[in-house]
Amino acid sequence: MANINNAPWTENFHITSLLVNPLGRLGLYGLLNLLQETAWIHAEKMGFGMQDMEQQGLFWVLTRQSLQMKTWPRFGENIQIQTWLRAPEGAFVAREFAILTQSGEEIGLCSTSWLALDRQSKKILPAETLRPWDQIAHARSTGITPEKIPVTGTYEKIAKYRVRNSDLDINQHVNNTKYAQWILDAIPYDLHKSLKLNTYSVNFLAETHLGDEVEVHRNCSSPDVQLATHGESAYKGLRVGDEKVLFTAVLGWEKRK
Amino acid sequence: MANINNAPWTENFHITSLLVNPLGRLGLYGLLNLLQETAWIHAEKMGFGMQDMEQQGLFWVLTRQSLQMKTWPRFGENIQIQTWLRAPEGAFVAREFAILTQSGEEIGLCSTSWLALDRQSKKILPAETLRPWDQIAHARSTGITPEKIPVTGTYEKIAKYRVRNSDLDINQHVNNTKYAQWILDAIPYDLHKSLKLNTYSVNFLAETHLGDEVEVHRNCSSPDVQLATHGESAYKGLRVGDEKVLFTAVLGWEKRK
Repeated sequence: MANINNAPWTENFHITSLLVNPLGRLGLYGLLNLLQETAWIHAEKMGFGMQDMEQQGLFWVLTRQSLQMKTWPRFGENIQIQTWLRAPEGAFVAREFAILTQSGEEIGLCSTSWLALDRQSKKILPAETLRPWDQIAHARSTGITPEKIPVTGTYEKIAKYRVRNSDLDINQHVNNTKYAQWILDAIPYDLHKSLKLNTYSVNFLAETHLGDEVEVHRNCSSPDVQLATHGESAYKGLRVGDEKVLFTAVLGWEKRK
Repeated sequence: MANINNAPWTENFHITSLLVNPLGRLGLYGLLNLLQETAWIHAEKMGFGMQDMEQQGLFWVLTRQSLQMKTWPRFGENIQIQTWLRAPEGAFVAREFAILTQSGEEIGLCSTSWLALDRQSKKILPAETLRPWDQIAHARSTGITPEKIPVTGTYEKIAKYRVRNSDLDINQHVNNTKYAQWILDAIPYDLHKSLKLNTYSVNFLAETHLGDEVEVHRNCSSPDVQLATHGESAYKGLRVGDEKVLFTAVLGWEKRK
């Protein structure tokens, strides 16, 4: 039974071995999965879940995501993730998140941007008319707007992957979190030890399918990690078959002290 | 503070989106991670954890694992995993597991086989003399003995992977559960939909490292999944660089009705 109100939804998570990186902390890929899990649970409670949408001939598409993290939780810690919806602006609905320690200290914020599409026509629907937003939308804003990431300048290919069975999620789609994992896997391991990730922004431009070959390219004007103390590195994902840009992403980092 | 007693240890888990396969059930890879998580927690409580062992100049090596599953839990369900230690036979210590539904119905059993090695000499230590086993070992036996898996007959190469950053765990080693994921990824997706996995047995023969190329080979005498209603398929993992056999595995399956 749908439970329509605008209160933020909170899920508690324990940071298990499956969620941590070799540095012993919750990694970006693990966190993105926890955000997704929280969003799924909240959407279902609200009668907004995938099955609810399906019954109405609709589906949600995640178009952009932007995350800011101050501290990455350690293996064995407990965290809270809060999520809420914002009133749509045009066709876009924003789902926002706050990541908190067990004692309530805010260590991260995230904003995601969604479009509602018609299953048949694949047309974008005017989100404003879909729901009684004044009953659903929460006033809090993270202040984060997931922007369009431009694809300009020269890129170099740094990795190539083939989409595997294990990239598919419960919806039989390549899970969006895998795009982040491909980027992280394309970054030399030693850099993961010397750099701390502060921000992650991604635009989802096209879907990938089982067996697709995907190249990860790095923008050549991204700052040199040997020289800079902090900076932003830009990436894009390209399907080998049709050279379609699948995603663009920017990772903001600083050197560990 | 170590808490040495022989009582089985129980951990409770919620089956999240990160743990399920596209069929909406806990997958082998997810389950192996939960078993590992349970083992790690229990080992630490017992003063047997990796750090405890390190202080004594020792480390544990997982050599064999064998799992029998009756039912695979669904997305959103809660399960219990129990673990206990068995008195060593020669150098080998067995850690066993029972997988139960929330209401206590046993849906799976697993046995793992471990060796204690000296960090310096890499020599196998006589496990029998390492601990007061009469205080630690539990009487229950799953009845499963992880056997040596023979490497005989003809094999065909079915996949090749390069070890990625995301294959490394908190110990900076390629996590043993990844070997299972490589096999599952090498099996055509359609077979995952038509076959149910009943058993999984693996022998860990050599460690892999970041950047290694690993081939998955399938034993040609494994039964034809088009004709048989059930059977066992044998696999091995091979490092391209030195052709070393890294692991052998057998998956027991039946056709879904």
